[in-house]
Amino acid sequence: MKKWIGFLSIITLAICFIPQRSDSQTRLPISENTEACLTCHSQLHPGIVAEWKKSRHATITPAEALKKPTLERRISNEKVPDELSKTVIGCAECHMMNSEKHKDSFDHNGFKAHIVVTPSDCATCHPIERQQYEKNLMSHAHGNLVKNPVYLGLADEVNGIKLFEKMKISSKSPDAETSLDSCLYCHGSEVKVKGKTSRETLMGKMEFPILSGWPNQGVGRINPDGSKGSCTACHARHQFSIEMARKPYTCSECHKGPDVPAYAIYEVSKHGNIHSALGKGWNFNAVPWAIGKDITGPTCATCHVSLIVNEGGEVIAERTHQMGDRIPWRLMGLIYSHPHPKSPDTTIIKNKAGLPLPTELTGEPASPYLIDSKEQKKRKTAMQKTCLACHSQGWVDGQWVRLENTLKTTNEATLTATKILLTAWEKGTAKGLAQKDSIFNEAIEKKWVEQWLFYANSTRYASAMVGADYGVFANGRWYLNKNIQEMIDWLEFKLQSIPSKK
Amino acid sequence: MKKWIGFLSIITLAICFIPQRSDSQTRLPISENTEACLTCHSQLHPGIVAEWKKSRHATITPAEALKKPTLERRISNEKVPDELSKTVIGCAECHMMNSEKHKDSFDHNGFKAHIVVTPSDCATCHPIERQQYEKNLMSHAHGNLVKNPVYLGLADEVNGIKLFEKMKISSKSPDAETSLDSCLYCHGSEVKVKGKTSRETLMGKMEFPILSGWPNQGVGRINPDGSKGSCTACHARHQFSIEMARKPYTCSECHKGPDVPAYAIYEVSKHGNIHSALGKGWNFNAVPWAIGKDITGPTCATCHVSLIVNEGGEVIAERTHQMGDRIPWRLMGLIYSHPHPKSPDTTIIKNKAGLPLPTELTGEPASPYLIDSKEQKKRKTAMQKTCLACHSQGWVDGQWVRLENTLKTTNEATLTATKILLTAWEKGTAKGLAQKDSIFNEAIEKKWVEQWLFYANSTRYASAMVGADYGVFANGRWYLNKNIQEMIDWLEFKLQSIPSKK
Amino acid sequence: MKKWIGFLSIITLAICFIPQRSDSQTRLPISENTEACLTCHSQLHPGIVAEWKKSRHATITPAEALKKPTLERRISNEKVPDELSKTVIGCAECHMMNSEKHKDSFDHNGFKAHIVVTPSDCATCHPIERQQYEKNLMSHAHGNLVKNPVYLGLADEVNGIKLFEKMKISSKSPDAETSLDSCLYCHGSEVKVKGKTSRETLMGKMEFPILSGWPNQGVGRINPDGSKGSCTACHARHQFSIEMARKPYTCSECHKGPDVPAYAIYEVSKHGNIHSALGKGWNFNAVPWAIGKDITGPTCATCHVSLIVNEGGEVIAERTHQMGDRIPWRLMGLIYSHPHPKSPDTTIIKNKAGLPLPTELTGEPASPYLIDSKEQKKRKTAMQKTCLACHSQGWVDGQWVRLENTLKTTNEATLTATKILLTAWEKGTAKGLAQKDSIFNEAIEKKWVEQWLFYANSTRYASAMVGADYGVFANGRWYLNKNIQEMIDWLEFKLQSIPSKK
Repeated sequence: MKKWIGFLSIITLAICFIPQRSDSQTRLPISENTEACLTCHSQLHPGIVAEWKKSRHATITPAEALKKPTLERRISNEKVPDELSKTVIGCAECHMMNSEKHKDSFDHNGFKAHIVVTPSDCATCHPIERQQYEKNLMSHAHGNLVKNPVYLGLADEVNGIKLFEKMKISSKSPDAETSLDSCLYCHGSEVKVKGKTSRETLMGKMEFPILSGWPNQGVGRINPDGSKGSCTACHARHQFSIEMARKPYTCSECHKGPDVPAYAIYEVSKHGNIHSALGKGWNFNAVPWAIGKDITGPTCATCHVSLIVNEGGEVIAERTHQMGDRIPWRLMGLIYSHPHPKSPDTTIIKNKAGLPLPTELTGEPASPYLIDSKEQKKRKTAMQKTCLACHSQGWVDGQWVRLENTLKTTNEATLTATKILLTAWEKGTAKGLAQKDSIFNEAIEKKWVEQWLFYANSTRYASAMVGADYGVFANGRWYLNKNIQEMIDWLEFKLQSIPSKK
Repeated sequence: MKKWIGFLSIITLAICFIPQRSDSQTRLPISENTEACLTCHSQLHPGIVAEWKKSRHATITPAEALKKPTLERRISNEKVPDELSKTVIGCAECHMMNSEKHKDSFDHNGFKAHIVVTPSDCATCHPIERQQYEKNLMSHAHGNLVKNPVYLGLADEVNGIKLFEKMKISSKSPDAETSLDSCLYCHGSEVKVKGKTSRETLMGKMEFPILSGWPNQGVGRINPDGSKGSCTACHARHQFSIEMARKPYTCSECHKGPDVPAYAIYEVSKHGNIHSALGKGWNFNAVPWAIGKDITGPTCATCHVSLIVNEGGEVIAERTHQMGDRIPWRLMGLIYSHPHPKSPDTTIIKNKAGLPLPTELTGEPASPYLIDSKEQKKRKTAMQKTCLACHSQGWVDGQWVRLENTLKTTNEATLTATKILLTAWEKGTAKGLAQKDSIFNEAIEKKWVEQWLFYANSTRYASAMVGADYGVFANGRWYLNKNIQEMIDWLEFKLQSIPSKK
Repeated sequence: MKKWIGFLSIITLAICFIPQRSDSQTRLPISENTEACLTCHSQLHPGIVAEWKKSRHATITPAEALKKPTLERRISNEKVPDELSKTVIGCAECHMMNSEKHKDSFDHNGFKAHIVVTPSDCATCHPIERQQYEKNLMSHAHGNLVKNPVYLGLADEVNGIKLFEKMKISSKSPDAETSLDSCLYCHGSEVKVKGKTSRETLMGKMEFPILSGWPNQGVGRINPDGSKGSCTACHARHQFSIEMARKPYTCSECHKGPDVPAYAIYEVSKHGNIHSALGKGWNFNAVPWAIGKDITGPTCATCHVSLIVNEGGEVIAERTHQMGDRIPWRLMGLIYSHPHPKSPDTTIIKNKAGLPLPTELTGEPASPYLIDSKEQKKRKTAMQKTCLACHSQGWVDGQWVRLENTLKTTNEATLTATKILLTAWEKGTAKGLAQKDSIFNEAIEKKWVEQWLFYANSTRYASAMVGADYGVFANGRWYLNKNIQEMIDWLEFKLQSIPSKK
């Protein structure tokens, strides 16, 4: 009885939740399946249904969307399957798409639904974006971390628990939940079906899959249908908004900390200031995105992703979800800055020393795995086209000379730290310090990591985006030099104060 | 003469300052007393008068406000005193309320006014909020700091001045102004009347009370009428806006630093991103606050304070100013995470070792003073109701498993640091280092404090709000482990390099 | 041929780029020279042309601007040269102004244009602002850094590269590009003409000057016409907006890092919160700026720069671009807080020890070069007038007592650190440590720098703007004391562990 009252009140309320076009009274067609979903979920999860109602998915059908001129299209398929084209894209269209490939599919009130919507599902209408994204380092962010023994070693030193007994530190390996809560939040988890559970709901008892690695929206998520990535990392559910992905706050979710302070630097750059102070009237929804008309300053997406035109409609930059397309150098994430890797799967890289690293420990690039100078030039030219929409060539050249000089000097500062570390390893072995058990657990090793992961990265980003203090006192050059002094002090203290530990 | 010119020009100008309803030409009734205040103060302090004119206080009378349906009411009293109900709430209504209880009352142009408006004054119309707030830890923030000898010891180590002579560091106790400028800015000062002063004003010589501990708007302020707290900590004078209190910037005033980085983490969380990128059209003024209709993502207040309904008007969460109502665990502020204390006055807590701490130094909870698992479950369920307005139960469960795992692992990391500290105390005593004079003054003790106060807190908040790098490299797990390594290095250096100091 | 097609398409498109008044259909007159510029540049650089079209420069002629009542005027000249007064201020008006004085002038399609527009060019219409700005410390920021040997020494320790060989650290002096990318980004570069280059353009081959020190918009830039400063540091090209300069994000470009965390502190202050939470409807464009009507809380510019009136139009604060006008104390930038220097050129200062510092190494002010207490009082009164627009005198007095107490206590904390450093120099010389080669290169010297440059500054700013944790745990007092403990530990380790290095 109680269940029926719940159900009836839900039905009654659901009527208000049918999306309407703001510009007319015509109700847009919703598929029967989606109407069925909305019957309950509009009441159960009003937040996400309201988001969806504001989305483009809810306010245009694919058939109409395909009629737009090419540059204005957000669908990259030439055709959309007939059964999808005449109704708006609602719950069922995505959560019941390709369900045979989804290990997380389950019977749900007579429907076959799945929990995790994946890039393969989105590719039904957006195949080019998926295809490009597959070539983006980000889509491989899970494997590039957990399948690279060096990086996994670093992750273990972050996430493991240290124990102390009898003046000795030991390490306990990280548990699975910690990794999910830590590195994999951004890098992406592996989502697997662990079993089933039944839960009491307003509709009575229902069965649901239990997922491990869930929730997660990391850029390199391994999905239950075998695909990689999560479009909702940037286009958050359930508005899937281009506006959100174009705003810098979205990038800040993963790109603000000391290891990758891109957003923090953008915020204090001239570009970021223009966005903060004058961006309130900008049009973040226009496709294509016209410099001058829609925006008068760049966000992250302007330079790295979006389809940019001038006011005359001429293309300045093609849309790309393979973000390396406009990036000649890799500024961050590894010990030295280097030409971008060729393959998004970086686990295939081996340097001359046999380590899965894109440079030697002393900085020389592992060239066979990295793009060559011709490809670098091509990417630099692609990036500069956007710069040139507001700046003269002389300005842009000056800026790039400075950036490339900073790549060189920060690599030098890292090399100095590496040399101290190598000396510690060499001299220390005899004395029981700085051993090579893990290369990340001793204090001096951690300082070495901070040299490249924090200070060199911060300085490079500050140089790339003109972010003032992030290249000076805010984790910038001040720390690059202070850290070296502290590394050598530590080594001297250790060498002289622990003579007994032979 | 000059005085009269000043007075006349003020009168003339004051006419413009009578608030008007934006939707009609009807002037709202203002009490005679408030009109008298405005005569001068609208000219003297145009900023705050303009704020007030925008406030709900200035645009509705209590009598009208009481006619609203229950869920829409912002007044929690069933009745408001007759003499207050027919005019808007202006200067006099608050600054002359309960003046007999106010030690800061003074004669002011024939009126008895007081400077510090307190929760007891606000309770005339908002008694339930005051009553709840009294049970909120925040209202006891002053005493919980200065009457807890352990915490006062920490505050003294923060605010005192260090002196150096003959290779020895000594400490000078903090002066009163420094404490006010430091911890008590957020925790709240004790505001006392020290005397009177007369000041030359545009109206001639006038007498005013001199207050110590003033200005202050800390959450646990001790007021001259004996009450605790300051409503303006979150509802800033003189708009007293619900919009402001619901926006995350308000919480950031006290909850952004490394000891309690809640806002910093929110900002880079998915929730914070949705607010920053898409929140511009949200309605922060609606009461009740409808998820879906008014907002499509949470701010701090959504989860912790506000009356939340779904689009059908059904209550999802009751309004509460006793914010612990939805919080099963205490994440921050003490050495280990633990079940929330029962009483907002935490000075009554004694652990088994006799210390005023909610856990032992080794982490075991001082259970008699803390809520039990049944109450924890109740609060968790209350909090999850808001989560479930946008997320499925499976998602929410996954998130909470992760959070509770993080509470456990960060407690373990703190325990390791504590063990090193205990060893330092034990071994060190013989050598004149790390003595128990203050438990917060030696370098190793400060590192121990940072282990829980900065790194464990940051990691826990990151887990609770899914704030990525704050659980990894931005004061997160990286530092938890690095700090342990540095503590043991410090101890080894000390033990071996200072053998002479027996 | 290709060139002609490019040219024609540009001409065609350029027609859309003539600015129009939003309130009428009357086209505003544009000079012939500017029309010629727009023909190509509106197409080549749509971003900046669009910015300009939104600017006041493009939407009013000087002749009309001069008709405004005095308080509303943004032009500070009584008269503007006839040839400028009847057309809007466009490309040619600035980039061809005073070209005979510009070493960066070059022949450009038959025009004599220059790249770097300078305060001397802007002074054609805004002479008072330029004149005030010349007395502002900021206009001397380049020389005050690079011509002060102490400061240059610090800069070299930041920007130089450290090398390591045979257990020894050595230093390589910073290259020119690094300095430009680092300190000089904010302090301003020296822009010089190095030569000429010819570049292939849409219009065929053209010749351009090559500039060193370019790009740069630092506040103390040395320009090719010999002038100092860059108005675009705050009024970014090409909107030159008063709105932008009044928003706090602009100041954050240079005032957010740990050495000068003004913006970071403002953001978490009550004032910053009011701006973030309730500032969306404020009018940032009004001249004069009326407290109450236009804004109900301050930004940086409100207190430090802008012409502020009350709602009756009475002046509360005069506009000043000599920002010291309202600042009695210098909080940051040097070892101790002290009365503001008299001259904006601080290279003329010599303390009793002969160093170019405004205090002795032990804190006593170099009084002959600093303003006296009478001037301090005058500036304090000027600043407090803005405070008093929203606060009572009692509130304001309480706030200032606290600030001045903090100046005293942070100076004491710096003195303690200095005493440890002096001891290290004295004792260390015998042992080969902490030598006076550079006073910034040893670890203990760097800690000493952080004592004043990071922690004392942060604490002072927090006190001045009531920024909570920035005076406590966010680089505040906690670190002032922790740092002292670490300095003495370092010294003890060094003295005892390196006995051999005589």
